[in-house]
Amino acid sequence: MQRSYVIKPELGKEYPRVSHGKGIYLYDTSGKRYIDGCSGAVTASIGHGVEEIAEAMAEQARKVSFAYRSHFSSEAVEELGAKLAEWAPGELNWSFFVNSGSEATETAQKIAIQYWQEQGRPSKTRMISRWMSYHGITMGALSMSGHVLRRKRFVPLLADYPAISPPYPYRRPDGMSLEQYARLCADELETAILRVGPEQVAAFIAEPVIGASGGAVVPPDGYFQRIREICDKYDVLFIADEVMTGVGRTGEKFGIDHWGVKPDLITLGKGMSAGYTPMAAAMATEKIIDTITRGSGLIMAGHTYSANPQSAAVSLAVLRYVEAHNLVEKAAVQGAYLLRKLRELADESPLIGEARGLGLLCGLEFVKDKRTKEPFPLSRGVAARVISRAFENGLLVYPATGGLEGVAGDSVILSPPLTITTEEIDELVDLLKKSVQRVQEEMRQEMQLT
Amino acid sequence: MQRSYVIKPELGKEYPRVSHGKGIYLYDTSGKRYIDGCSGAVTASIGHGVEEIAEAMAEQARKVSFAYRSHFSSEAVEELGAKLAEWAPGELNWSFFVNSGSEATETAQKIAIQYWQEQGRPSKTRMISRWMSYHGITMGALSMSGHVLRRKRFVPLLADYPAISPPYPYRRPDGMSLEQYARLCADELETAILRVGPEQVAAFIAEPVIGASGGAVVPPDGYFQRIREICDKYDVLFIADEVMTGVGRTGEKFGIDHWGVKPDLITLGKGMSAGYTPMAAAMATEKIIDTITRGSGLIMAGHTYSANPQSAAVSLAVLRYVEAHNLVEKAAVQGAYLLRKLRELADESPLIGEARGLGLLCGLEFVKDKRTKEPFPLSRGVAARVISRAFENGLLVYPATGGLEGVAGDSVILSPPLTITTEEIDELVDLLKKSVQRVQEEMRQEMQLT
Repeated sequence: MQRSYVIKPELGKEYPRVSHGKGIYLYDTSGKRYIDGCSGAVTASIGHGVEEIAEAMAEQARKVSFAYRSHFSSEAVEELGAKLAEWAPGELNWSFFVNSGSEATETAQKIAIQYWQEQGRPSKTRMISRWMSYHGITMGALSMSGHVLRRKRFVPLLADYPAISPPYPYRRPDGMSLEQYARLCADELETAILRVGPEQVAAFIAEPVIGASGGAVVPPDGYFQRIREICDKYDVLFIADEVMTGVGRTGEKFGIDHWGVKPDLITLGKGMSAGYTPMAAAMATEKIIDTITRGSGLIMAGHTYSANPQSAAVSLAVLRYVEAHNLVEKAAVQGAYLLRKLRELADESPLIGEARGLGLLCGLEFVKDKRTKEPFPLSRGVAARVISRAFENGLLVYPATGGLEGVAGDSVILSPPLTITTEEIDELVDLLKKSVQRVQEEMRQEMQLT
Repeated sequence: MQRSYVIKPELGKEYPRVSHGKGIYLYDTSGKRYIDGCSGAVTASIGHGVEEIAEAMAEQARKVSFAYRSHFSSEAVEELGAKLAEWAPGELNWSFFVNSGSEATETAQKIAIQYWQEQGRPSKTRMISRWMSYHGITMGALSMSGHVLRRKRFVPLLADYPAISPPYPYRRPDGMSLEQYARLCADELETAILRVGPEQVAAFIAEPVIGASGGAVVPPDGYFQRIREICDKYDVLFIADEVMTGVGRTGEKFGIDHWGVKPDLITLGKGMSAGYTPMAAAMATEKIIDTITRGSGLIMAGHTYSANPQSAAVSLAVLRYVEAHNLVEKAAVQGAYLLRKLRELADESPLIGEARGLGLLCGLEFVKDKRTKEPFPLSRGVAARVISRAFENGLLVYPATGGLEGVAGDSVILSPPLTITTEEIDELVDLLKKSVQRVQEEMRQEMQLT
C-alpha cells in the first residue's frame, strides 16, 4: 500500500479501504464483508448504495449544485424546509441549513442569543448543558458538551458554562424510583438557572437520548416534561439536540416526540442526509423567527454551503425514502426486537451491565462487576476491545466511552440502518455475541495472570 | 408562491429560485439569466453544471457514499490526499478533511495547540489573528476573525485573542513606501507575540489575500516573508487560511505561493469542491504530524463526515478538472485581464477608490471622495446598492463591507469561475459598469436633495 496523506483517527495505523456497500453491508477492497451495526457514525440510516439517492444527486448536479443563499433559494431547499416543518413537533417550522451537527448546535445557540437580544435582553447569552453530552467539536459546540475526553485538550479555550447531571437510570441511587429520579435530575436545571441568574441564561441544550458520551442512555418519563416547565418558568429556551436521534432513529420522527415535549429549537444532522452528503439544520419555532423578523430581520449565522441546492436535494430524497419505506415505524418495531436480543445477550454475559435503547439507537454498557455495577478503568479499554473484535468478525460498532467523568465508562452503540430486517438483526447479534465472548475470554485470562 | 420554511439571510424577503446553471451563467425559475460574477460565495470555481462532476458524484454514490473514518479509509480520500500533497507547498503533505471553512480553521487551531502540547508546551494555546479577516462563524473561528460586523452580536462569547492590523496598501500612511509599510505591519506581529508572551501563543492565522472583510486586499511583497521569519523566531505556527484563495483562485495553486512562503498549516474550502459538495480541509506539515504521531498518536478533532468517500470523490473530480483545464494558469491570465478592465472602470468612476486583486479574486472599493479616500458611512449602504443593482441587471457580486472597524468600508468582490473567457469578462464588466453608474446617479440625486 502506498503511503497515506490523510490524517486518520489513529495516526500511523493502516485502515482497510471501503470498496462498496449495499443495504446494511459494507465491503472493503479485500472483499471482506461487514455488517454496518452502527450506520457508520449513526449516520447511514437508510443503508448503503441506495440507487434512488444516487439518481436524485446526479439529477440535481446536472441542473445546478451551488447557488449562494444571499442570491437565490431553490425548489430543493424550499421543499426540504416544508417537509421538515411537516415532520417537526409544534410550531418548529423554520429550518436553518448548515453542514454538520457542530454547526447546527452553534447556529441554534446563535439564534437563541439573538432571540433575547431582539427583545432587549442582551445579558441572556449563557448556555446550560449536561455532563455526559456531546454537541460537537467546534469550540462553541464543545463548550456546551460534557464529553470529558473530547474536551480535555481544550478546556482552557472553552466557555465555562454551567452543566447539570443527566438522568442515567442504570446508575441512579439505590432504592430511588424512576419517577423520583427524573424529578431530581430535572430540578437540577432550576437550581443551575437560579445560581447563574435567569437573566444570564439563553438556553438549555440536551440530547433526548444520550449518544456518544453515554451509549443510548434513555431518560425516564417525566424528565423532559419537567425540563420544559422549568425552561418556561425562567424564559430559557430549550434546544433538543437531535443530530443523532432525529429523522426516525428512535422510532419516532424526533427523539423528543416520545415524551410529547415541544422544544424551541431542534438540531438535526446525521440521519437527515443518511451519509449521502454533509447536511445539518437548526430548526426554530414560529415565535422565535417572528421575533427576529420584526426586530433586526437578519440572523447573524450561516456558512458558504448553507441551503445549497445539491445538499438539499439529497436530503430531500433521503426524507422521502424514509417516508416511502415507513422507516420511522420500522425503527420502532425492529428496535424493540434488537433490544430484546441485546437484553438476552446481557443476561448471559458477565461483562454486560445493561442493554438499553430506544428504537434503533441501542447501547451496551460493560462493567467489571454486574452486581455492584463497578466499571472498568478506561485504561483496560474494554469497549475498545469489543469494537476491535467485532471489526475483525465483520461487524461495525460505535464507541461511547468515558461517560463516567472521563476516567471510566465503557459503552458501545448499536444503531444499524433503519432498513434492517429481523434476520439481519439475528446475524448482527450473533457476531456481537461472538465478539463479546472473545473479550470475556481475554479478560479472564488477563485476570488470572495478574 | 407558497410560504417558505427556510430561514433566509434577510427574513421576510423573497428570493428568486435558481433553476439551473451552465458555466458562468445561472438561471432562475422565471428564466432570467445571471452572470455568476463571484462564483456564488467565491465557491463555484469551475462553473456550474459540469457533467464530469455529476458523473463522478453518481459513480461514487453507486459504490458507497458514507463510511466512518474510524472504520475505513477509501480510494477516493487517499487519492484526494495525495493530490493535495502534490499541490501544496513545502512539506504540507497531510490533510484533515472537514465540511466547511469554519471547521477547517478550528481544526487547524486544534492541531496547532496539540502540536505544542505533545512537546510539553501546553501554555501555547492562543491564536494571533488580524483585524479585517474572516476565518468562519463558529465560535472558535469567529474568535480568530476580525470581521467586526459578524462578531458584533457575540463578542461576550468570543475569546479575546490579540489581533494586529493587516497591510491595506490603499489606505497606508501618506508617503510611506510599500516596502516600509510591509515591514511595519509584519513587525506588529512581533510586538503582539512579545506582549502576550511567546509561551502563550500557538499560532498566527492570516488570509493571503483578505476576502469577505476587505474585498481582495493584496499584501505588499515582503510582508509574508517577514511574517514567516517572526513566526520561526518565536516558535509560533503560521496558518495560511486559503479557504477563499486556495485551489487556483489567485492564479497560483495557493495564494501564499505568490510569495514563496511555506506555512505550517493551510486551510482549504470553497474552491476545493467548487460548490458540488460541502468539503474543506486543514493541511499540516510532515513535522507537525510526525510530532503528534510520536506523541499521543491521536488527533482530537474530526466530524461525522470527515473523510467520507462521497465528498472526497467529488473534490477529487474537481481538482482533476482544474488540472485538466489548466485553470490555475487561466486564473492568472484572465485575472490580469479582469483587473485591467476593473481599473479602467475605476478611472472613469467617481465612486470607485480602488480596483485591486490577484488572479480571479478582485475587488472594488467605493469611496465618497477619491482624493481623500473618505469612505461612506455604512448606513448609506453603497456596496449593498451596487450588489442590488447588479443583481437586477443579471450580475452576481459578493459583498465585503464593514472592513473599516465595522462603521465604514464599502467593497465588493468579483471572482467569477476560473473558466471565464475574455468575452465573458467583457460582458461581466459591462453589467458592472451599468450597475455602478446607476448607483452613482442615485447618490448624486440624494446628495442634491439633502
